[in-house]
Amino acid sequence: MEQVKVFLDESEIPRQWYNILADMPSPMSPPLHPGTGQPVGPDDLAPVFPMNLIEQEVSSERWIDIPEEVLEKYLLWRPTPLYRARNFEKLLDAPVQIYYKNEGVSPPGSHKPNTAVPQAYYNKAFGIERLSTETGAGQWGSALSMACQMFGLECRVFMVRVSYEQKPYRRLMMMTWGANCIPSPSNLTEAGRKILADDPDSPGSLGIAISEAIEDAVADEKARYSLGSVLNHVLLHQTIVGLEAQKQLEKIGVYPDVVLGCAGGGSNFGGICLPYVRDKVHGKDISIVAAEPTSCPTMTRGPFAYDFGDTARTTPLLPMHTLGHDFVPAPIHAGGLRYHGMAPIISHLVKEEIIEARAFDQMETFSAGIQWARTEGFISAPETNHAIAAVVQEAQRAKEEGKEKVILFNWSGHGLVDLAAYDAFMTEKLTHYELPEEEMKRALTCIEGLPCP
Amino acid sequence: MEQVKVFLDESEIPRQWYNILADMPSPMSPPLHPGTGQPVGPDDLAPVFPMNLIEQEVSSERWIDIPEEVLEKYLLWRPTPLYRARNFEKLLDAPVQIYYKNEGVSPPGSHKPNTAVPQAYYNKAFGIERLSTETGAGQWGSALSMACQMFGLECRVFMVRVSYEQKPYRRLMMMTWGANCIPSPSNLTEAGRKILADDPDSPGSLGIAISEAIEDAVADEKARYSLGSVLNHVLLHQTIVGLEAQKQLEKIGVYPDVVLGCAGGGSNFGGICLPYVRDKVHGKDISIVAAEPTSCPTMTRGPFAYDFGDTARTTPLLPMHTLGHDFVPAPIHAGGLRYHGMAPIISHLVKEEIIEARAFDQMETFSAGIQWARTEGFISAPETNHAIAAVVQEAQRAKEEGKEKVILFNWSGHGLVDLAAYDAFMTEKLTHYELPEEEMKRALTCIEGLPCP
Repeated sequence: MEQVKVFLDESEIPRQWYNILADMPSPMSPPLHPGTGQPVGPDDLAPVFPMNLIEQEVSSERWIDIPEEVLEKYLLWRPTPLYRARNFEKLLDAPVQIYYKNEGVSPPGSHKPNTAVPQAYYNKAFGIERLSTETGAGQWGSALSMACQMFGLECRVFMVRVSYEQKPYRRLMMMTWGANCIPSPSNLTEAGRKILADDPDSPGSLGIAISEAIEDAVADEKARYSLGSVLNHVLLHQTIVGLEAQKQLEKIGVYPDVVLGCAGGGSNFGGICLPYVRDKVHGKDISIVAAEPTSCPTMTRGPFAYDFGDTARTTPLLPMHTLGHDFVPAPIHAGGLRYHGMAPIISHLVKEEIIEARAFDQMETFSAGIQWARTEGFISAPETNHAIAAVVQEAQRAKEEGKEKVILFNWSGHGLVDLAAYDAFMTEKLTHYELPEEEMKRALTCIEGLPCP
Repeated sequence: MEQVKVFLDESEIPRQWYNILADMPSPMSPPLHPGTGQPVGPDDLAPVFPMNLIEQEVSSERWIDIPEEVLEKYLLWRPTPLYRARNFEKLLDAPVQIYYKNEGVSPPGSHKPNTAVPQAYYNKAFGIERLSTETGAGQWGSALSMACQMFGLECRVFMVRVSYEQKPYRRLMMMTWGANCIPSPSNLTEAGRKILADDPDSPGSLGIAISEAIEDAVADEKARYSLGSVLNHVLLHQTIVGLEAQKQLEKIGVYPDVVLGCAGGGSNFGGICLPYVRDKVHGKDISIVAAEPTSCPTMTRGPFAYDFGDTARTTPLLPMHTLGHDFVPAPIHAGGLRYHGMAPIISHLVKEEIIEARAFDQMETFSAGIQWARTEGFISAPETNHAIAAVVQEAQRAKEEGKEKVILFNWSGHGLVDLAAYDAFMTEKLTHYELPEEEMKRALTCIEGLPCP
């Protein structure tokens, strides 16, 4: 019987998160205040985030202790198992070993609680009573709902209206965990009312929902805003994934040649790769690959520029790969990969050529996902299928080159409540889709005149 | 940091299933041929099941080796973690320790693959090319679809039409795993056509779907039928759950006072409890409790009698607790607990007073399930909530009696694709429901004149 899974005992769970800012090969450009053009300071962010999280956001300490209360909740599903995908390897028939972290074992079924739990904890510790956030397909909203329930916080989730109506299951998870889920655009905020005045049937977008959630949080001094990706502290919390993977691979004496993940805002990808970026910065020969959709090719085709995180231009300007804050992506089924921007940390590492980005077409990703389900059993989230498509590509290259390779990737979540997307693929309702050049250019006009990083 | 989970290494996975027939305190009545009234022999069953599974069905060997090929597939999700529900314990504030097996980590999210995988394996080994089965809510159909795909068998699933239409997600799982899922009643079988002639809009029932699947399998000599619960060999395969739990509890020096599970056909309950029934038969003081719905109170109110497993009276007569093969249960949301009968092994042990059965109202079960989700994180299948309601009852008793108790139960699956049922509960569309006496009596008239066990 060949080994399939590597467990860590609970006593072996990492006690600290890893902060890549301590090992960046070159300084990152700071977020800017859009009014003054000056770097934003902690005080600028204080109405939006609690000060303890702001301190984490700007910290350059290499290791940051995970509070006991957070570890206690992590233990509900962590450490997650590291798998070897032996059945998928056989199917690919290439000289590769494929390992993956199974983040689908968490209660909502994705990696998102890794940061939802500490964010709820730090807000509670700072005296905050309510969190406000936005969600697209619902992965983030459901994770934060659970975390708020665990720490006795109220939770309000602005959910993109089209998803609210078409994807009831994650909305029902939020209800089960006691949160208040509101279709966005809503009448609760100025930002929402403005959109509804123009278009009462607006399907909403992630950018609009972010604007609503921030406005809602800032208006109430006992409330704060919470973001599920993009920011430094979010990626910091997610490094528990890569740190566990390193311990697990060490147990079986393996070191990867390639580390992979899908990237929307960059959090699950950052989680698996940043501890390996550290090794690479210190001289290790390792390839680190981010997989994004051809319909939202932020890193592969978007410029590295200063841009807003939301449509209403309420956030600080972030230095990142972007398609422009006005960008409205095609309705592909990987909701988590439809964001116009990318985490500044990941963007900076792409610019520095430490991370390589590749884009995959949705047809290719579902085809890889179905092969995966039929060999490994688990049905992946559509987002995760982008990582699997990248694994297939790496395996083919290894075969062509006749080189042995060890691949590690983050299986960021299961797709059991995303099966309508599989249905669309299997009944041939999906097509190849590449973002047209003129559409991208049009979207990018909105960042003209903004400062350059 | 207090321990939450107990893992087993893959090398510690049990290599044999446990067969309770070797330790039964009194002989069980045999299944009868409905025509002759004589015990059915292996040859009678040969058109329905492959001979290697028929041998398991009648075996009285105490330990049966798990084939290497089955173990290899089990490792995709087994051994499953044993959890201590510390957060739920705190909420209940009673002198109890609560442990549970998390069977929700399997690819389809329930305990069903524990028998689907060996059934597919044994059929393949016997030269069978196609399996036919039925499914209600889809837990079983999805598990068998995955297992057939793993061993290269075709799979045809007759799914109760009302579920086929209202619960698309498990149907889509079956498609993703390559199976052919057909709404029942269908035009593919005589049994289906007969029902449709009377009522073209028939919503179907599990009894009808079983008749269709058996007819479909028997008509094709390269096909066989597969059942996801009730039979001896199914419960045998599920004992891996209880055997793992015993090893895990032994590691932390704990022995349970109460073992619990929800029971529809009896397979997840048999899986957790039969290794403990063995201990009880040999003198151990332990209480073993089956939780069923008040809407389908097979063990608590149905007689122990000979009855058919299906509506069309095509199966052998089984000695079991039953509400009559014509029984049409109220549409409660725990599809897996709506069967009119109960596994003969479990029925016999209830008759012998080794197992105690208790019925729970759906309101009580959802209320327990929501408390669970808000403390332990995981959202349970509606079936599993019956076990949680029984845990709450045991905790209350322990508190009243001032007695410390260790409770072990089978968390048989997650409810992420059953959230419509939670929605109905949270929006107050569900009510208390107890099966009316006259309805039960009417249903039981169909077994008058059948032999008595």
